[in-house]
Amino acid sequence: MTIKENVMVVEETVLVSADVLRNFVRDVFVKLGVPADDAYISADVLVKADLRGIESHGVGRLSRYVDRIRTGLIEPVARISVVRETPSSILLDGGNGLGQVVSYQAMQRCIKKAKGAGTGWVAVRNSNHFGIAGYYAMMTLEHNMLGLCFTNSRPLAVPTYGRESIIGTNPISFAAPCNKEKPFVLDMATTVVPIGKIEVAQRKSIPLPLGWAVDNTGTPTTDPNKVLKGGGILPLGGRAEFSGYKGYGLSVMIDILCAVLTGANYLSLIERPVDGKATSSNIGHFFGAISIDGFRNLDEFTETMDNLIGMLKNSAKEEGETRIFVAGEREFEKEEEHLTSGIPLYKKTFLNLKKIGDSVGIALSI
Amino acid sequence: MTIKENVMVVEETVLVSADVLRNFVRDVFVKLGVPADDAYISADVLVKADLRGIESHGVGRLSRYVDRIRTGLIEPVARISVVRETPSSILLDGGNGLGQVVSYQAMQRCIKKAKGAGTGWVAVRNSNHFGIAGYYAMMTLEHNMLGLCFTNSRPLAVPTYGRESIIGTNPISFAAPCNKEKPFVLDMATTVVPIGKIEVAQRKSIPLPLGWAVDNTGTPTTDPNKVLKGGGILPLGGRAEFSGYKGYGLSVMIDILCAVLTGANYLSLIERPVDGKATSSNIGHFFGAISIDGFRNLDEFTETMDNLIGMLKNSAKEEGETRIFVAGEREFEKEEEHLTSGIPLYKKTFLNLKKIGDSVGIALSI
Repeated sequence: MTIKENVMVVEETVLVSADVLRNFVRDVFVKLGVPADDAYISADVLVKADLRGIESHGVGRLSRYVDRIRTGLIEPVARISVVRETPSSILLDGGNGLGQVVSYQAMQRCIKKAKGAGTGWVAVRNSNHFGIAGYYAMMTLEHNMLGLCFTNSRPLAVPTYGRESIIGTNPISFAAPCNKEKPFVLDMATTVVPIGKIEVAQRKSIPLPLGWAVDNTGTPTTDPNKVLKGGGILPLGGRAEFSGYKGYGLSVMIDILCAVLTGANYLSLIERPVDGKATSSNIGHFFGAISIDGFRNLDEFTETMDNLIGMLKNSAKEEGETRIFVAGEREFEKEEEHLTSGIPLYKKTFLNLKKIGDSVGIALSI
Repeated sequence: MTIKENVMVVEETVLVSADVLRNFVRDVFVKLGVPADDAYISADVLVKADLRGIESHGVGRLSRYVDRIRTGLIEPVARISVVRETPSSILLDGGNGLGQVVSYQAMQRCIKKAKGAGTGWVAVRNSNHFGIAGYYAMMTLEHNMLGLCFTNSRPLAVPTYGRESIIGTNPISFAAPCNKEKPFVLDMATTVVPIGKIEVAQRKSIPLPLGWAVDNTGTPTTDPNKVLKGGGILPLGGRAEFSGYKGYGLSVMIDILCAVLTGANYLSLIERPVDGKATSSNIGHFFGAISIDGFRNLDEFTETMDNLIGMLKNSAKEEGETRIFVAGEREFEKEEEHLTSGIPLYKKTFLNLKKIGDSVGIALSI
């Protein structure tokens, strides 16, 4: 049983419909000065995370966006500009607006480029946390394209042989359409776990599996307090013996694409306080769209996808296991479930949302 | 101490200069009917692996290529053709020739596309094992581009919750130039370890670290024999608890880009015998080149790379460690060392090469 499942059992939840939640979040953003269309997209990205069961990136994060808009660290009106352009690529400046706004536009531009040039690649600088990477990768699916999305993040993990959190959880997302099967949607941090899992363990006083994270000497620890006080998460793979330098390498690759290539912040420069004051994130993203028919007929591609997924799911199971999953499968099942039942929000999250609503004069009623 | 280091100590080696080795391998390929230029490239890729200390992908593999050419499973003359083309992408058919030949051409075409369209993406079908992925990613460096390279491989690893080896070790390579620092060159399998490390442990009767691989019931084992007889390597991350589904997801992503998109074989279809007979591999690759100046001035990019690498290397070390490495650093150090000292070949590898030479009338003298 995972820590997440433990929490599901012990924490009380409230069911809220996706539509109610989306409208609420949109209205909060509008009250803070975000233009209506931008507010809708930002709300949709957050609610999509909750629908798909990725609550670490859902409406539970709303207070962070709200606080940063209120303190001037995020601009409510994103003045997005094209910095450079080639036939297949664009560099966008996100104008320090909500990450969701520039990211949605960036992937739209990838798709447009891919229609003309076969592929489209848009890098973004001067942006903020954009929610789940999978949202943008999946935007390509209805256009019969493959979608790719990377972002860098504030430093939370230690490089191999290090003891200082200077690398990000820098996620990768990749989406590919199928015929009868659900799309393949990979959406993964390049660390063993996201920071949310460490925070949950701390709140519940549950020990961590040895191999998730280290203390401030770089030694693996099961104590979430030690990780959060000067330690860090391990990159995907874990310690060097288990090839953690591969996860570390992927994380740095993503910093290169999202920041070194764009002029955004990277590593521990992200959200580093200046004169004791918080600073704007200036993180970067990198998006790609690949037109399938530039390589192969669409129907051949999607039928082959079905076959590949069938081979994986039908292959022999480990003793005691009954299913082999493909990337995105659990999330599509959650989405279907939550669209019917409503989204289960932890009571604490729900009350926090109500409080945010109260502060701007928007009611959250279920 | 890793298993590799153990072996370095106990196995006798012979020093051979890179030039001697490259000429020898080229001459062997020529004797087998490979055109001289193609033979040179194929030899150069293999020797580059040995120079960089990646002996699992070096001249020790020559016999496999030779055997496959002799038995008609690889065509000595690669008839490469363009199947589809867009302004930024190409699908190539490798003509079932040596993987190195079509891959070298594919990356050249990426670079040419990127000069015109900002980025260039070439997928390949009907190919064979291409050596180290890093060779092709690094081809972009002198053109001031970022290089990307993926390939799928024969099945050697188990998906999360599976017990059957149906996914590949499917590597990712990414290269980026620096100013004063050596380039960043990531070149990694998406499994915990390559199959070579399991084979070495078997030969030396050394137990595996628990978490590298499983037996034929899907249970983690330290016995290399059990892994090689019906078990499999674990994807990067290891078991589900440590997010092995991420390595599994990356491996499948690479099968999609290299095979589903191209029409090549994937998963356990690769090298599956038909009527008890070996079949040609028909694996696929995917290459990319990204022109840096489509996004940012080159000098700004390379100076920022130096700064990023400096921050990583100077960050605090885990107790007992003195260095933090960046991707490719160890390999560049090995290359410098081996260019001076010669390449240390295991005596068994050296004798095997001599035997191959004898069979085609080419002497290997040191």
